Order: sequence, then structure tokens, then C-alpha cells
Amino acid sequence: MPYYIGDVIKEEKKLIARTPERFRETGVDVRIDTRVEEVDEKAGQVRLSDGGVLPYDVVVLGTGTTPLMPGIPGEDREGVFTLKKFTDALRIKAWLREVPCRKAIIVGAGFIGMEMSEAFRNLGIETSVYHRGTLPVNRWDPEFSQVVLDELRRHEVGFVTETETKAVEAGKDHRLRLVTNHGEEEADIILLAVGIRPEVTLARQMGLPLGKTGAIQVNFSQQTPRGGVYAVGDCCESFHRVSGRWVNIPLGDIANKQGRVAGVNIGGGALTFPGIVGAQSFKVFDLEVAATGLDEREAIEAGFHPVSTLVWGNAIAGPMPGNRKLGLKLIADRAMGKLLGAQAVGEMGAVSRINVLSCALWAGLSLDDAGWLDLAYAPPFSGSRDPIHITAQALRRQI
Amino acid sequence: MPYYIGDVIKEEKKLIARTPERFRETGVDVRIDTRVEEVDEKAGQVRLSDGGVLPYDVVVLGTGTTPLMPGIPGEDREGVFTLKKFTDALRIKAWLREVPCRKAIIVGAGFIGMEMSEAFRNLGIETSVYHRGTLPVNRWDPEFSQVVLDELRRHEVGFVTETETKAVEAGKDHRLRLVTNHGEEEADIILLAVGIRPEVTLARQMGLPLGKTGAIQVNFSQQTPRGGVYAVGDCCESFHRVSGRWVNIPLGDIANKQGRVAGVNIGGGALTFPGIVGAQSFKVFDLEVAATGLDEREAIEAGFHPVSTLVWGNAIAGPMPGNRKLGLKLIADRAMGKLLGAQAVGEMGAVSRINVLSCALWAGLSLDDAGWLDLAYAPPFSGSRDPIHITAQALRRQI
Repeated sequence: MPYYIGDVIKEEKKLIARTPERFRETGVDVRIDTRVEEVDEKAGQVRLSDGGVLPYDVVVLGTGTTPLMPGIPGEDREGVFTLKKFTDALRIKAWLREVPCRKAIIVGAGFIGMEMSEAFRNLGIETSVYHRGTLPVNRWDPEFSQVVLDELRRHEVGFVTETETKAVEAGKDHRLRLVTNHGEEEADIILLAVGIRPEVTLARQMGLPLGKTGAIQVNFSQQTPRGGVYAVGDCCESFHRVSGRWVNIPLGDIANKQGRVAGVNIGGGALTFPGIVGAQSFKVFDLEVAATGLDEREAIEAGFHPVSTLVWGNAIAGPMPGNRKLGLKLIADRAMGKLLGAQAVGEMGAVSRINVLSCALWAGLSLDDAGWLDLAYAPPFSGSRDPIHITAQALRRQI
Repeated sequence: MPYYIGDVIKEEKKLIARTPERFRETGVDVRIDTRVEEVDEKAGQVRLSDGGVLPYDVVVLGTGTTPLMPGIPGEDREGVFTLKKFTDALRIKAWLREVPCRKAIIVGAGFIGMEMSEAFRNLGIETSVYHRGTLPVNRWDPEFSQVVLDELRRHEVGFVTETETKAVEAGKDHRLRLVTNHGEEEADIILLAVGIRPEVTLARQMGLPLGKTGAIQVNFSQQTPRGGVYAVGDCCESFHRVSGRWVNIPLGDIANKQGRVAGVNIGGGALTFPGIVGAQSFKVFDLEVAATGLDEREAIEAGFHPVSTLVWGNAIAGPMPGNRKLGLKLIADRAMGKLLGAQAVGEMGAVSRINVLSCALWAGLSLDDAGWLDLAYAPPFSGSRDPIHITAQALRRQI
């Protein structure tokens, strides 16, 4: 951390304040700190929280997600945070500096919980993660989740399993106290990161149809079934090219693409969002953790006949200095021989393999194809047989 | 270098000597230091350099490549090396230790020249590269070759352009002297790395048809047109899935796959080698350099209508610590919109992007597809718009 946190917050606040000004040149009227209370489709106008009213021809809903709350007494105490918006990050940074914090508790062991445990530890803050289940990041195979847990422990992050949170109270030695079914622990900051759901309050008011995921239904042009109403990003669904279903995977890269699609179509151009394959990743301390496509459960739900294998190999050529173990799991359909999904964990090379396999899923390649892919071999970057080849061939033998 | 070079050589020599023994258990008779002088197809036997004769049912030619020699007086002097075989590396290591070497000259600026310049510099040896052209690694765009040259200079490797070598003589201050059109320079070791060609002496003797590349013609089962004769690896051709032509790209990963194909088919199984897309990479000091598919010249030769763009972006999300510049060039066919090739250079993330694009080429994806690919986004691994997306979209606008 080469910068003083306070400076950063000041800079960032200035940046936000300048947003409307920066957009004015482009002819776009950007309003910050302004909530849309109602979309009046009959009148063709939106009513704002400041009492103002704006006419419109087209509405784009980019309402994002809302953090889930455990629903326990004291969850709204000062020092208890969720992390979703940019301003959440600013508030957390200000709190960390002003208190100051020696101890942090994170409730939840998903992406946010993992990334924030690293952030807290990098600031020298004693950190514990409280989790409902027994292993972190349950999107991954338990063998990989165990590796993530080992990485947390290696960096002295506490991990408390099968937790039910009961309350947040005022602390004695620290500002706050988390009460759980496993007793109590005090901390100067508590981060609630138990999940998010699509923010669809406005969409509901407008009577827009929501999908099974709870997110807004859209088509390949990001149009809702209602004329003149678009939705993009975390609040809406995306077509999953592997499962053939509409899913809600809230990630910034997807939101970015969907925004472009809506914008071009609204502007009279033609652009189609061709869907996703479920690629995702996070970093926790020295570990890359990534996945793409379907896991076995999702594959079965989609009607496939999954087989899978998990192989530990080398991220780069065996004898090269700096070589690290890389775990790769592949899931395929034994009826069609088609690749369905992949997961990887390692100190290097996990994300790069998952990106190759995401492209393979995008193209609908078979497991055989994955086993033969021509990759840019050189010993500093992989063995002459890449983990992708080895794992794909191993799984192929099971079919 | 944590080990004493002499120990390593001893260990490696032992390893080689043990090879026949290790294979004996598997029922395979491996002979080392034994050249096949002739394949007598009528008699169904091979004649060995030690006078022995071996009967066979099937012959597999895996004769690899032979280094090209400049053909100048003194090129066979002690201390002048080529680097192709494992034993070449052992001889070089022994020479470096025994002389010892303070100064090295490399003739040629391809993969081997680049990798060896790093190896020499890491040993503290003053190093110069003499090159026929003006920029190293001419497989890459001149803008990228310039980056490679800058990297050499940053690590104090001399680079002499438009060189014609004239002779190798005995030196005064050092063992050897290289005479060129630009004058003379002395060194303790000279590495000739001006290129390689398929080693097809035996194939010629047998009258096997060679392709335009000078390498042995094979089919998708690695069979030559002659019954019972297979060829694999650097000495034979491979089908290039993008150009639709048979090419000779001598790389270990391709050889490895082709060996497996020949072995399974000879053993009565069924395995097909589905070809390559021309993926390749090397590391020179802190730089990753990678390419895949066709460059513009190859694309035109294959009858495509190439357009290309080269974009400098960020290997990971802009504000992340450790971020590095990444250059990515894409080549596409403006008639079909199909992706044809890619090149990348950077301190991180170049090979991983080229591997994704190699998969895209494998699957015959369009430039549009490349612009939409769902990759595993997280700020430590990429921006929310990956360089692949940005470059593909930039090139798409040209079509």
C-alpha cells in the first residue's frame, strides 16, 4: 500500500463529484446521488428522489444487485458493512483509518469474503471468516475449496464453519461483538458478505417479468418484453451457452458488454449479445481460483450426463525454476463427449487455463478437441503436454 | 543457478546411460549412441552404425531436425556450437565450465538465439547477437520485434544487424574470433543458431515423398505413403487448420502428440492427429513473446484477405499493482470476418492471450466471437474488457 488511504478517498470523492461535468461535454446529463423512485410509463417520465421529473423515450435499467442481509439484531450498527458499491469501499476505507481497526470479522466465504480477507490481512488486521458451510467457495470442487482454506490458514485467517449468526452487539475490547451459535467474538469491523440478489424494485413496480433467477428477463438485444425498456448488467439475466438456460451471474465484464449492446441498439445500430459460459475467477493471497461452464450439479439439471476428473499437474514445465502445482478439473458429457465445464486452482496458470477452456466452451468443442488443442508451448509457460491436454485425455479414457 | 554445472552434467549423462535399462522392463529395446545407416525395406530390416542388423514390421521415423550451418571457414572449430540435441546442451555446459567463458557470440536472432542470450547473460557472460536482418524474431510484427530488441539492450546484449559472417578464426584475448562484413569480434564461445531444417537423410534414401517444406509427407495417422512407415515430430509435416496447408513447425508439443498418434495406430488402436494452428512462444529475460495462426504474408499466400490491428493495453486491470503493458495484434479475413492469427508481447499475460486465441483459431471462430468471448474476469487477471475484446472490436470496426 504505497498511498495514504485518506488521500485516496479524497481523490475518489472528487472523481465522483466530477462525473456529471465530465459527461456534460458529450451531451449526457449524469445525475449522481439521485434515486429514481418511479418509472411512469404512461406519462413517459421518471420521478426522482429529489422531487424532479424527467421525460424519456427509452429507459435502461442497470440497477445492479443488493447485498443480502442475515436479518439479525444489530446488523445495522456503525462498523458493520456490506461491500457492493464504490461508496461502500470508500466508507470501509474511512472506517479502517478512523477507528483504527485491529480486528475484522467477515461473515460469508464467497468471492467478496475471500478477497476482503486478503485485503484486511495485508493491512495487518487480525481476520476471521465465519461461514455457514464447512468449506469456502462452494462453487468449486471440495478438493479445491480445501486448497483455498489452506491458503487462508497459511495467512493466519481464522475460519469458523457451520456458523449461524445471531446478533451484532457493542463490544468491550473492540467496537463490535458478533454472536453466533459457536459463541461470541469481538472485532472493530464486521463485513457481511453472505450473498447478493438482483436489485429489481423498480422492475417489479413496472410489472416487468422476472426470470426464475429473480433477475429481469431480457432478449439478445437487452430488451425487456416491454417496448422501450432495456435492462443490462447484474440486475438482468444472460443466456448461458452451455446450459442453454437464462442465468444471473453478476460480473463486471458481462455488465460492460451488455451496456454496449443496449447502447448500440438504442442508438439505431444492430448489436447482439451472444451470451456467456460462466467464466469467473478470484485471487486470494497467492492463489488463483477460476472456473467456467457448469459443475456436475448444474450439468445434471441441464440434462447432461456428466463425468469428471481432477488432475494435479505443473503450471509450467516440470524442471523450470518457479514451477507450481496446478489443479485442473474437467467436466464433460459422456453421451456427446462435449466439454461442459472446468475448474482450476494454483499459484500460477489457473486463470489462463480456464480462459482457454472458456473459449472451448464458447465454441462447443469436445473433450477430444481439448486434448489436442495447439497451445503456445515453451518450458517457462507449460510442459510439452499442458495440464489441459493431460486432464482432457484422462477424462476421455473414462468415456 | 543453485547447482554446480559439472554435477548436473554427470547426472544427466547417467540418466542417458540408464535409458535402455529403464525401458527394458516395458519390453522396449532402446539403443543409444546408435545410428540407423539404412532402412532395407525389401529385407524388412535396418542396418545400424555398429554393423548390427535389426528386423522390423513397422518403422517410425523421428529423425528431427539438423541445424543449418553458415558454411564459413572455421565453423567446426572447438568452441563453436549449435544447439539442437540434449547432448549439445551438455557439451555447451561443459565448455562454459572448463574454459571458462567471459564472452559469447550468438549468430542468429530466432528462438534459440533469444533464449541463449538470456542464458549466457544469467551466467554473467558478455553476449553479442549477430543477425542477418535488422530486427530479431521476424515471425513477429516489427513493432513487437523492436520491443524484443529493447529487452535485449536493457540486459546489455549486443545486437549487430545486417551481418554476413565470413569466418571463425583463433582469437587472441579470447579463444575464438568471428569475422563478419562489419569487422571482427572475439569470444570464448560462438553459438550458431541460424536455423534448422528437417533431417530427412534416411527418408530420402528410402525414396519417401517430401512436401514443399522439405519435411516428410504424412497423413492424419502419421503414416507416410509407404506401408508400414510412419513419421512423427520435427522431421514431418503437420496439417495447419487455419491455412489448410501442410507445414513444418518443429516444436516439442507437436512431436509429443504425433508420437502418441503413431503409437496408438501401430498398436492397432485408432487415433487421428487433428492438426495445429501454429501456436508458439518464447521467453527472453522478462518478456513473454507469443504468436498463433497466420501472419499477413501467410494469410495472403493462403488466399485470405487480411486486415490487422495492433493495440497496446494492460495485462491486468489498470489500477492494479504490478500492471504491465501488453501488446496484442490480431489478423482477420475481411471477406469472412474470420480470425486468422494473433501475436502478443509483454511482461505478463502475452502467452495466456495467445492460448485463448489459439483455441479460437482451432474452433474457426470469427473476429466477432473473439470480441465477445466470456473470460474469467477479476482485476488481478484482466480489465473488465480484456485486451482480446478491445483488439478484436477495434479490428472489427475496420471491416
